[in-house]
Amino acid sequence: MNSPETLAHQVMGRIDELAAISETPGALTRRYLTDEHRRANHLVAGWMTAAGMAAAQDAAGNMVGRYGGAAGGPSLIIGSHLDTVVNAGKFDGMLGVLCGIACVQALHQSGRRMGYPIEVVGFADEEGVRFGTTYLGSRAITGALDPATFEQTDKDGITFRQALLDFGLDADRIGQAARRADDVMAFLELHIEQGPVLEALDRPAGAVTAINGQTRLSVTVTGEAGHAGTVPMASRRDALAVAAEGVLAVESICAQVEDVVGTVGILNTSPGAINVIPGDVNFTVDIRAKDDIARRDAVAAAIRAIRAAAEKRNCIAQVTVLHRAVSAPCSESMIAIIEKAIAAAGFEPSRMPSGAGHDAAAMAALCDVGMIFLRSDGGISHNPAERTSEADIAAGIRIMLNVLDEMEG
Amino acid sequence: MNSPETLAHQVMGRIDELAAISETPGALTRRYLTDEHRRANHLVAGWMTAAGMAAAQDAAGNMVGRYGGAAGGPSLIIGSHLDTVVNAGKFDGMLGVLCGIACVQALHQSGRRMGYPIEVVGFADEEGVRFGTTYLGSRAITGALDPATFEQTDKDGITFRQALLDFGLDADRIGQAARRADDVMAFLELHIEQGPVLEALDRPAGAVTAINGQTRLSVTVTGEAGHAGTVPMASRRDALAVAAEGVLAVESICAQVEDVVGTVGILNTSPGAINVIPGDVNFTVDIRAKDDIARRDAVAAAIRAIRAAAEKRNCIAQVTVLHRAVSAPCSESMIAIIEKAIAAAGFEPSRMPSGAGHDAAAMAALCDVGMIFLRSDGGISHNPAERTSEADIAAGIRIMLNVLDEMEG
Repeated sequence: MNSPETLAHQVMGRIDELAAISETPGALTRRYLTDEHRRANHLVAGWMTAAGMAAAQDAAGNMVGRYGGAAGGPSLIIGSHLDTVVNAGKFDGMLGVLCGIACVQALHQSGRRMGYPIEVVGFADEEGVRFGTTYLGSRAITGALDPATFEQTDKDGITFRQALLDFGLDADRIGQAARRADDVMAFLELHIEQGPVLEALDRPAGAVTAINGQTRLSVTVTGEAGHAGTVPMASRRDALAVAAEGVLAVESICAQVEDVVGTVGILNTSPGAINVIPGDVNFTVDIRAKDDIARRDAVAAAIRAIRAAAEKRNCIAQVTVLHRAVSAPCSESMIAIIEKAIAAAGFEPSRMPSGAGHDAAAMAALCDVGMIFLRSDGGISHNPAERTSEADIAAGIRIMLNVLDEMEG
Repeated sequence: MNSPETLAHQVMGRIDELAAISETPGALTRRYLTDEHRRANHLVAGWMTAAGMAAAQDAAGNMVGRYGGAAGGPSLIIGSHLDTVVNAGKFDGMLGVLCGIACVQALHQSGRRMGYPIEVVGFADEEGVRFGTTYLGSRAITGALDPATFEQTDKDGITFRQALLDFGLDADRIGQAARRADDVMAFLELHIEQGPVLEALDRPAGAVTAINGQTRLSVTVTGEAGHAGTVPMASRRDALAVAAEGVLAVESICAQVEDVVGTVGILNTSPGAINVIPGDVNFTVDIRAKDDIARRDAVAAAIRAIRAAAEKRNCIAQVTVLHRAVSAPCSESMIAIIEKAIAAAGFEPSRMPSGAGHDAAAMAALCDVGMIFLRSDGGISHNPAERTSEADIAAGIRIMLNVLDEMEG
């Protein structure tokens, strides 16, 4: 059997191969149902097959590899996502899929099968970049995809339904991707931490306690465009000034409460000319917290601040909730198994919440979930500088193999 | 001779004809050296010819009509611009050109010539939308066009030099558009006020004392992109939060000083994803004032506030001056003539500075300038709701004809 170190080295090479498949030259961007998605699935299918799995793309575009167990029964699903944000790092998502494949490869090469079947899934859409809605891949597997989602459009006006058709899939048959709860034993996801906690603790891995809840808003501010030189300051209805107060309110409200973070990631001004007062501004708000009540309080405070800023300037602010997810706890038994597996690999276990959303949050609707976090250099992610060391990846593979053994019990 | 009322009605019809020539359906946008510029020039040339003028396009794309005087000598140039901002109103610029043509038409139809030649100019670029530099048309006529300007690019990367070529003109021959100072008697511009002063005074017209000075900045803020869910608030380097403080600083600094206005019209965030902390933001600042020292103080205060906001968040702010123009006074003799002409038309004269830039500011480098402002409904401009009434336009034509008589003396 290959050592975790050898497997980690192979994973590093494969990460670069996957990162080369991008919509934009010189930067990594790979959205759901693009040609690059198809090429990534194809590459992953080859690695799954080489690791002894039967590989197939499901009705939502997820890539699924199955490695039968010594007995039948429900599967352990190991997975993470293959899509990326715009100008992404190369570890986010991909690393979890490749470590899952590496573990099955280790079993296969030593001719070993667990008592239960293992499935490795490369989810097709977690980031939600293309249609503004996250977890489309994992939600299809849980059967919880809202049919209204099919009519959402990307920035070019293409509906999710049409994009599925263009990819060779069919919205009306996406239910075929759904799994029955009694067919799934648990879901295990390995992912980079994307935050600074493990680095500060000087530990390679931790067990996730919960995936933080999240609210995403779209805010449209309507004021009045006007000449930058002639409209006195007191008569202005400047939509950008309202939005700027919103940006700073999100920052200060979230800075005041522990374990709450808030971000304005998109802000567009119109008409967008140097000598015209902006009459219309659209921006997004993303607020996350371990505690659902703290999150709701922060969202309400941000909306109040935005409305007050609009009222002060005689503008109108319309707030739409794009996405709302409660905090998703990992199962206590999975947390305990992962902590034991970390200790068996020779490291001090730690528990921590996840500030980022993960496929495990969606999968929690179907089965028990557990997550292994690996240390991120500088806590950086969603950025080309994102990095997890090969040594930590080897630790992650060793821990994941230990989890497989623990789950045999 | 046609009455000012009949001429004003004709001007209203022609404004609609010009407004129909747009780069964007359903909204008025007509930038320098576009096909729409060519079509507008063609239409205006026809009206100039019908008013008894010899019409020709000059080497910078300005449309010039000449109506000879009873004697020779230097000309009175009457003019304004034919280009527009993005999603513009239809009076800004065009009205001054059309009123000039209407006055010449009145002279022509009554077989009358002034002692001096009159030239009506439709300037090709005043707003500076395409190349980010204002007054390209009028500065070509004053001979003050900086050769470096030819290498500036539009948003598609086309240089000013190339755009001239595509239009059938030649950057190296643009000097042919320049006029000699001893060949020009004065410059007279009629323009909508684009502000609320005349409406508040309930008067149709006023005499401009000076065109306010102006500073335009481009600010680039560099922070660090990162995951919206995992980077603690205290560790963020959020470029958009810095820019938001900049927007609010410009607003509050300019609100505190009389006759100073400040605007952030363009703001772009990158990477621009809902779940990514903005790592790079670019925005513009436009600050104008009657008093040059008040303007410089406001610009310096805004830059200090932006730098402090950047430092607080461990970001870098780079500030570039795109454009700086000192306040351009109208000549005392022209102001007196315009006030006399307003009184002779039966209205109470008023003096006021211009918050907006105008071709007259560039022309002041060549000759004495005077400006007539006409009342703007609600003070609105750079907006499709921009409007000046037909009655006020008739008053404007009557005042302009009085100015022509006064200048005979």
